[in-house]
Amino acid sequence: MSAQAPRSTALHTDRYELTMLDAALRDGTAQRRCVFELFGRRLSGGRRFGVVAGTGRLLSLIQDFRFGDDELRFLRDGRVVDAATLEFLAGYRFSGSITGYQEGELYFPGSPILTIEGTFAEAVVLETLALSVLNHDSAIATAAARMSIAAGDRPLSEMGSRRAGEESAVAAARAAYITGFGATSNLEAGRRWGIPTMGTAAHAWTLLHDSEEDAFRSQIAALGVDTTLLIDTYDIHEGVETAVRVAGTSLGGVRIDSGDLPTMASQVREHLDALGATATKITVTSDLDEFAIAALAASPVDSYGVGTSVVTGSGTPTAGMVYKLVARQASDGSWVAVAKSSTEKSSKGGRKAAFRTLKNGIATSEVVAISDGFEQVDTPAEHPGARPLQVQLVLDGQADAAFQGPAGVEVARAHHARVREELPVRGLALSRSDPAITTVFVNAKP
Amino acid sequence: MSAQAPRSTALHTDRYELTMLDAALRDGTAQRRCVFELFGRRLSGGRRFGVVAGTGRLLSLIQDFRFGDDELRFLRDGRVVDAATLEFLAGYRFSGSITGYQEGELYFPGSPILTIEGTFAEAVVLETLALSVLNHDSAIATAAARMSIAAGDRPLSEMGSRRAGEESAVAAARAAYITGFGATSNLEAGRRWGIPTMGTAAHAWTLLHDSEEDAFRSQIAALGVDTTLLIDTYDIHEGVETAVRVAGTSLGGVRIDSGDLPTMASQVREHLDALGATATKITVTSDLDEFAIAALAASPVDSYGVGTSVVTGSGTPTAGMVYKLVARQASDGSWVAVAKSSTEKSSKGGRKAAFRTLKNGIATSEVVAISDGFEQVDTPAEHPGARPLQVQLVLDGQADAAFQGPAGVEVARAHHARVREELPVRGLALSRSDPAITTVFVNAKP
Repeated sequence: MSAQAPRSTALHTDRYELTMLDAALRDGTAQRRCVFELFGRRLSGGRRFGVVAGTGRLLSLIQDFRFGDDELRFLRDGRVVDAATLEFLAGYRFSGSITGYQEGELYFPGSPILTIEGTFAEAVVLETLALSVLNHDSAIATAAARMSIAAGDRPLSEMGSRRAGEESAVAAARAAYITGFGATSNLEAGRRWGIPTMGTAAHAWTLLHDSEEDAFRSQIAALGVDTTLLIDTYDIHEGVETAVRVAGTSLGGVRIDSGDLPTMASQVREHLDALGATATKITVTSDLDEFAIAALAASPVDSYGVGTSVVTGSGTPTAGMVYKLVARQASDGSWVAVAKSSTEKSSKGGRKAAFRTLKNGIATSEVVAISDGFEQVDTPAEHPGARPLQVQLVLDGQADAAFQGPAGVEVARAHHARVREELPVRGLALSRSDPAITTVFVNAKP
Repeated sequence: MSAQAPRSTALHTDRYELTMLDAALRDGTAQRRCVFELFGRRLSGGRRFGVVAGTGRLLSLIQDFRFGDDELRFLRDGRVVDAATLEFLAGYRFSGSITGYQEGELYFPGSPILTIEGTFAEAVVLETLALSVLNHDSAIATAAARMSIAAGDRPLSEMGSRRAGEESAVAAARAAYITGFGATSNLEAGRRWGIPTMGTAAHAWTLLHDSEEDAFRSQIAALGVDTTLLIDTYDIHEGVETAVRVAGTSLGGVRIDSGDLPTMASQVREHLDALGATATKITVTSDLDEFAIAALAASPVDSYGVGTSVVTGSGTPTAGMVYKLVARQASDGSWVAVAKSSTEKSSKGGRKAAFRTLKNGIATSEVVAISDGFEQVDTPAEHPGARPLQVQLVLDGQADAAFQGPAGVEVARAHHARVREELPVRGLALSRSDPAITTVFVNAKP
């Protein structure tokens, strides 16, 4: 039993992708060059910006998108596809190219977050995997970034694993870290992504012992006086008394996990100070979200632990991105921009290049230049200093290692910290509103 | 690369569980017999009932909760625990017992969904894994059950994988199937859990081709006239015309993925009938939730495909269950009921036995009998016909195979269908309200 063995990700796929592939192999369209785009039509939940996350995970998962014997047997036994398609899948390896927003980057409605180019056959099958990863991780990252803004300089820890599916919890810890959280309670996130882990004791620890004092004494014996004691199992006032009596005034910290937090924090701070434990820190962890964090700005709180709300996207558990065919080659080799044109779900066909215009270092607009299908788009002449937003993530099937693994997480975290500085002040507010900047679509000139 | 190789689940654990274990091994409390309980204080989202899901998954994941070389190395290198704890973990295997609500069962506030008995050491470390699985899967199952009620006899398919983390998507498909969905788009859910899969084509299929007619013709060549054609890529009226022209009047179905669905469904039905395709079915798939499904009850719709709302729990993405120490043995071997007693998060200590009282087959209350720690609790004398709600899931470390794997999914699905018949009429309504039945706590007599 090893945690490291790669599992095939090939069946994290909606069946219709393989039925389309099957039919396209029959009618010859499977080999048409295509450009798919992953983007969001709007920012869910009235958010003022979104944060791209999951990119580094996705690059690795695409490497593991291989159809082995087990996968092929399932497809054959279930008659999902025919023999020719099984043969194609047995040799499948994505050999196309992907450009996109760097992980940690901000995005806005219509931002071309990923552009996937390859044959129809090789690109259509990645739809579900790409959307699962980006929609989940970006929703968490966006919520976490708002919490990070609300917390200011105070450290934030993610501790919501128990409120998310066991694998999504690991991804959530990663997304929160990229957007400014400093640590996670989730050990698998520590192992897999190198994220600092934290945690001391739960209420069960106190309840296990014959008295709160026994529990505190034992915890300090094991972890030292620098540990954080959970003081609200019984009476919180007595909890503070006991904590300082047992640990002395150099106790590292106390944690409050219930009650009206502004009131509790003030009372506990006064109490600790009166007992001489003026350097003992206060962590609060009860049902926090970005609004509760903001409401505690004037309270004597030293750090926040956030659970449910960050791992569930604080009311917006999915980012609502879609994966659409936007351009394809015609029989004569020319490129054709394509888009669904009926009703409210219409989108803009054509390959996109994206730039962020800045004034004095502050973002002023998202410029998206649309072409039919040609490869390179220069910075639009009318926006000479605009920052290009897309980087090469995969080139001819080779994913850039710099964006993957624990090192990739650090790259994304640093990138996010840098680009968040570009947000205009109105982008920092927590209330529901329009996007902080407007997306402007222009026609690219080849 | 194999999808079947079990991965260790041991680090899907919050760090504090291992720091508590570490300290408990030092002070001797690690070997105290304990009873932990997994329960929900309330039904999130104003739901009238909850559905337990994830149990069968959890039983397998507990088997894989083993600390191999990789896990131990991470804990040692990160100085998470000391050498004695590493040695304990190297030999860890859960040898305790678990009783609980059968998967698919309904639950209410305070229902003792799982009761975990073992030493503190072996039971405390399962907190995060158990909560991750049950909180996620039960939230999805509860939302899905409401959709199933709203859909009545019309088939429902789950197709939300792209809006959930890639592994949570598989679990969501499973939970939806248990509560009445008939199929999923997710192939991995088909492979892993034996759930029927479905799907034909996306808008990309039509856009790939030189015309909608080419796309339809090719799809029918590959999948036969019994397939479902997606008719809203361009003009939906023309889409219907083209579909029937190409497939004939024995076309299996059409799918509508946009627009005002009651209006579109009526127009498309009339149009199909006028063209003679009176047996061609209509599937709708655009942003459906339980309310939208209910609003379509009088529309000529034959089946529903549900995406985002089911995999995100339709506004309630996590069930809010907790895992609490409720009883432990004292130094003299006697049992002590324990509970956090401060503020609003207080809970009821003691081992629980649960029964559902019925009148003419309809549930009237949830009776929870509390004892300090003794093993068996008989049906309360004052409720002679009450249905016992707990079953043995794990006995002395051996999980019951009947609840696991694809067969366990079918057992859960059948159980859910049966017990949902017990819901009083007020439990079937979709609006926010109090639980359909009241939970009554009584003192058990040994």
